Amino acid sequence: MAKVSLPKGTRDFSPIEMARRNYIFDTIRGVYERHGYMPIETPAMERNDTLMGKYGGEGDRLIFRILNSGDFLSKADQDALGEGNSLRTANSITEKSLRYDLTVPFARYVVQHQNDITFPFKRYQIQPVWRADRPQKGRYREFYQCDADVIGSNSPLNELELILMIREVFEQFDLDVEIKINDRRILQGLSKLLGIESRMVEFITILDKYDKIGLEGLINELTKNGFDKPVISGTIELVELVESGEGIKKSESLLKEFADNGIDDGVKGMESIMDIMSGLAGLLDKEYRASHNIEEEEDFIAQRPWDNVKHNLALARGLNYYTGMIIEVIPKEGSIKSSICGGGRYDDLTGIFGLPNMSGVGISFGADRIYDILLELGLFPPETSSSSHIMFINFGIKETEDSMLWVRKLRRDKINAELYPDPVKIGKQFKYADSKRIPWVAMLGEQEKEENVVKLKNLESGDEKYVRYDDLISQIAK
Amino acid sequence: MAKVSLPKGTRDFSPIEMARRNYIFDTIRGVYERHGYMPIETPAMERNDTLMGKYGGEGDRLIFRILNSGDFLSKADQDALGEGNSLRTANSITEKSLRYDLTVPFARYVVQHQNDITFPFKRYQIQPVWRADRPQKGRYREFYQCDADVIGSNSPLNELELILMIREVFEQFDLDVEIKINDRRILQGLSKLLGIESRMVEFITILDKYDKIGLEGLINELTKNGFDKPVISGTIELVELVESGEGIKKSESLLKEFADNGIDDGVKGMESIMDIMSGLAGLLDKEYRASHNIEEEEDFIAQRPWDNVKHNLALARGLNYYTGMIIEVIPKEGSIKSSICGGGRYDDLTGIFGLPNMSGVGISFGADRIYDILLELGLFPPETSSSSHIMFINFGIKETEDSMLWVRKLRRDKINAELYPDPVKIGKQFKYADSKRIPWVAMLGEQEKEENVVKLKNLESGDEKYVRYDDLISQIAK
Repeated sequence: MAKVSLPKGTRDFSPIEMARRNYIFDTIRGVYERHGYMPIETPAMERNDTLMGKYGGEGDRLIFRILNSGDFLSKADQDALGEGNSLRTANSITEKSLRYDLTVPFARYVVQHQNDITFPFKRYQIQPVWRADRPQKGRYREFYQCDADVIGSNSPLNELELILMIREVFEQFDLDVEIKINDRRILQGLSKLLGIESRMVEFITILDKYDKIGLEGLINELTKNGFDKPVISGTIELVELVESGEGIKKSESLLKEFADNGIDDGVKGMESIMDIMSGLAGLLDKEYRASHNIEEEEDFIAQRPWDNVKHNLALARGLNYYTGMIIEVIPKEGSIKSSICGGGRYDDLTGIFGLPNMSGVGISFGADRIYDILLELGLFPPETSSSSHIMFINFGIKETEDSMLWVRKLRRDKINAELYPDPVKIGKQFKYADSKRIPWVAMLGEQEKEENVVKLKNLESGDEKYVRYDDLISQIAK
Repeated sequence: MAKVSLPKGTRDFSPIEMARRNYIFDTIRGVYERHGYMPIETPAMERNDTLMGKYGGEGDRLIFRILNSGDFLSKADQDALGEGNSLRTANSITEKSLRYDLTVPFARYVVQHQNDITFPFKRYQIQPVWRADRPQKGRYREFYQCDADVIGSNSPLNELELILMIREVFEQFDLDVEIKINDRRILQGLSKLLGIESRMVEFITILDKYDKIGLEGLINELTKNGFDKPVISGTIELVELVESGEGIKKSESLLKEFADNGIDDGVKGMESIMDIMSGLAGLLDKEYRASHNIEEEEDFIAQRPWDNVKHNLALARGLNYYTGMIIEVIPKEGSIKSSICGGGRYDDLTGIFGLPNMSGVGISFGADRIYDILLELGLFPPETSSSSHIMFINFGIKETEDSMLWVRKLRRDKINAELYPDPVKIGKQFKYADSKRIPWVAMLGEQEKEENVVKLKNLESGDEKYVRYDDLISQIAK
């Protein structure tokens, strides 16, 4: 037999997997649309000049390039070929590549269609992206991103709303999460305070590993990279602030320090976080008071419903283009402890394509990790399936026409129904219904036809009874 | 300003285009699922050995190949490189490609997962495919196919059901179509009768052009390709049969001729078509009689609801793998006169991957052409949009919190609602609502807040009134 397989890092999705994935996408889509975000789609391929150089050198290497069609060698860079230089040769024999994320194509979209767009532009986009990463558990070469961004508005209301959307999505999944937020400008201020402004990116890249490597690991990494004592003791202080769990309150001392040292970026960052936190608290407090009978103020504070949003001074996020608030979501249950949603504000993403001063902010859900967690925790609703509700047994040519009439009537009543196509042994037909998880099987023979009924069997309970069409409908609807 | 553009033959989809496209996909998906077909998805990339050689030499040329990552030149075929042979070089520097259709990936899926599948397997698949075709009006390099196939069953009930599904999809689109069917075995029989069995593929490729080039064009092409007089006069007879419009009835004489000459293939093909047509007629007659008050038998015949399905002896369809019934759908309205849906039975598609004797039959809708036709004929429902139902005006920081509370309440009641994020001039906010086609705008100032109402404005009529929350809901629900 011929061997068949898929390119590594790619997957098929079976009907049951599709049903679960659609549950995730539909939930996210529903929340996005209820918040006024509208869908767009961009092509799988973008021009190389759109993608290359936007993700750092490492990113470029992970982009899948499409070989030019036809006689591509005739236009190849002969010098590069002669030298065996794959990168330069690639530049001469490819013009387009598969998208690496949805953010850069979105920036390209906004610039290209700027005259047709009314800003602020709230868009969502749920599409696959491709990365030539080394495949490993939970990391694929083709995976879906679910992005929502609003571009052309500076208002912190947008950040607030994105946080509320994240809360709502995970509430619908019934998954307990921690939402961490921070502001890039605070990290800039910190770098300035510590006198390492020129090495900020390097510093926050290390800082970002805190959750994985702990305080000791952090100190090791900083030392190894030649950061000196004051930086290390400053970092220890910072981590203590984070670990104190009171984030925003304790860090008010930091605000004072920024202000005293005239560090505007840090001050703005602190204020933005405090605005967002107090907006959130005010809103959810009011909602909670309106919908609950609050007897004791202290009880209320204790059960405050918005306490899964935490200011975390050590949150940095890898991507370079963030300039304001950043956000990351970690599941509190299950074995996966890494980010399942993230985002932030970027002040100049469209600037790279020639449209400056367009501030945007967005989030992205990682559907694949969410899938694994919901599956592990048994959080998919049991009815997550698009299978038929009922199957009619095929007793032979003569009987099929009447079964078909019933089946067609059921479909017009919006019930997924099918007739087994071949008049094979009944056992085989039942086995098929069973494997497709079809809950009901109907039989319509000569006698049933005369009495205008079908014999209906529930595959779970094994119960059988004769029913007329209307009873059939109400049975299945249960 | 930097110039931004897309690879040629590819497109962005704006929110309004997305809404229309989703209307098409949702309609087709709904019909598929009500008929017991279940969704699968396969990755965008397949291994070259899965795709290459399955679409003829022309097809191979149109497949987009993915350049190997990293130092691909180190493994390149040096001889091919030296000779400047692009094709052989491509084989040595690419291992995977973008899928060209959904049928070959489906065959690969069935073979790969055969132990997990209960046959007959009814699956649908709605995904993009990529072809390096020369772009032109209505032809793109990335486009969606919407396929349904059932594999592992020989029953003609499957063909019947696929035809009923096609009818239902276009009924829902309110688009008048002609559904042409034929059987490859009839064409085989014809080739035998005409004594050109060995040139059958060539003959039917010419025959397939009849709709475009007419009888005269057909005669020219046949003459040019060296077919002799008897073939030409036989073809003329055939076209007359087709043009008579009575297809199946008149062609019963053909059945006799096949039988007299012992041409089994032709006989089986004729019988399969007659089975399908009479099954369809019987079923729809019965349904029609049951749901209508039939007074005059002649009226009934005249308004017979199934007469958009026609047996067309000249229908051939290009693809090589069809072996039984073939089907093609042509719109009767609008300026596009080419196929918008097609399919057929194939006896051995999975044989190429080592799983023989799996008969399958399937159809595929061309979403892009259907889009163009529905747009031209104004057949998209007016409410085809996922935009917000209502927008709240932003009067400034103080007022937003109360507006947010209303907006969040509306969302929990499943109403798409948004608050404009910035406290800019009211005119600008109204313009935004207008351009997003949001029908309702709400204003909540100090006075409204005190009275627990909002001022609600309908953007179409210009009417304004003060409403409480419950009235707001019922207004919008209308």
